[in-house]
Amino acid sequence: MMTQRISIVENILNANDRLADENRSRLDEFDVFALNLMASPGAGKTTLIEQTLSLLPKQHHVAVVDGDVATSIDADRAAKAGAVAAIQINTGGGCHLDAVMFNQALDKLDLNQVDILLVENVGNLICPSGFKLGTHKSILIASVPEGDDKPYKYPGMYRGVDALVINKIDLLPYVPFDMDYFKKGVEILNPGLVIFPLSCQTGQGIDKWIDWLSKALIDIHNSQ
Amino acid sequence: MMTQRISIVENILNANDRLADENRSRLDEFDVFALNLMASPGAGKTTLIEQTLSLLPKQHHVAVVDGDVATSIDADRAAKAGAVAAIQINTGGGCHLDAVMFNQALDKLDLNQVDILLVENVGNLICPSGFKLGTHKSILIASVPEGDDKPYKYPGMYRGVDALVINKIDLLPYVPFDMDYFKKGVEILNPGLVIFPLSCQTGQGIDKWIDWLSKALIDIHNSQ
Repeated sequence: MMTQRISIVENILNANDRLADENRSRLDEFDVFALNLMASPGAGKTTLIEQTLSLLPKQHHVAVVDGDVATSIDADRAAKAGAVAAIQINTGGGCHLDAVMFNQALDKLDLNQVDILLVENVGNLICPSGFKLGTHKSILIASVPEGDDKPYKYPGMYRGVDALVINKIDLLPYVPFDMDYFKKGVEILNPGLVIFPLSCQTGQGIDKWIDWLSKALIDIHNSQ
Repeated sequence: MMTQRISIVENILNANDRLADENRSRLDEFDVFALNLMASPGAGKTTLIEQTLSLLPKQHHVAVVDGDVATSIDADRAAKAGAVAAIQINTGGGCHLDAVMFNQALDKLDLNQVDILLVENVGNLICPSGFKLGTHKSILIASVPEGDDKPYKYPGMYRGVDALVINKIDLLPYVPFDMDYFKKGVEILNPGLVIFPLSCQTGQGIDKWIDWLSKALIDIHNSQ
């Protein structure tokens, strides 16, 4: 009889990926375009969501799923900013969302009423990159005051995303940040990645992010 | 025969705690005062270490242990800033240091040559709080641009530390940050916590941090 080896870690990841695939099928069935927003604590995920809710053409109905260790501060802000629904997931110490949590959030939404679903992951540059949710695009929000060395120090996160927002560019005059060094690190890890330098405080550059989001929404509907 | 239950999670944590205790005994044996510095990515841990190396009276010999997912950028900076030794631990995807990694770092240091050991944990506001290393004090470095709601959203981290640095106060005029709201959250979680508002860029307020560190070093030597 031959011995058999079972790789536990691989099996756990596959269970998450399998449920992520189910989540994706459900989103597609209801024509919902979903984005997974990831960042360090305080890079500006919630403020970007508020700005996106304010600036996207009103025919698009946007729902928000917020992941946090504790509180419903972020979901409250999203609801106030005009989300058709805002679901808060408290991980109670967990450092990322996973496909099970996202599945439970989908259960609470009337997907018929939603065109775009913005998922705000737990503030963390490491753990969220390892767990697929089933969203269509992954977006990383970097921020100028957190420094220009982050692509080099958190390669897993920068490698796996479909677009990069560089928030708080209004602070460039006040902090040391070498944009060329930062972008060089990004290019090594994720060649050709689309980048949106912007400021959620002043509004500078947000139009390009909104244009990209609107176009991606049309593309995904045409491909279905 | 009675059934017996083994709580796996508790056993794993205890193994870490046990090794943390061993690390502490070793530090005490060599009269080394060790601090565990924790923060979000980009809050300014490395810059605070550079400033501390520059401003502490030169009779204190400072070594640095740096935890990062990848690169030796931080240990290189610490060595350049005057650390008697700088050890980089790359976690390869892990979101925190633990007592095993710290134990391995201690093996690489000549503790006879060290008075203060600054441990820079992985940039993360969640995972590091769950794993003791054996250091004497835990220090949290918050940063003004990451926002005033962080105590409320990351209670585990704010609850467990012995001192709090609020870095980048030079950015207060440029970002929304309600200091009273922030401090109220801290006070709920960690009443009476000693707080150092400062700027590693301008140097404002750093003298109080250096004074506290110098005094803590004397206190710990007197208590041994």
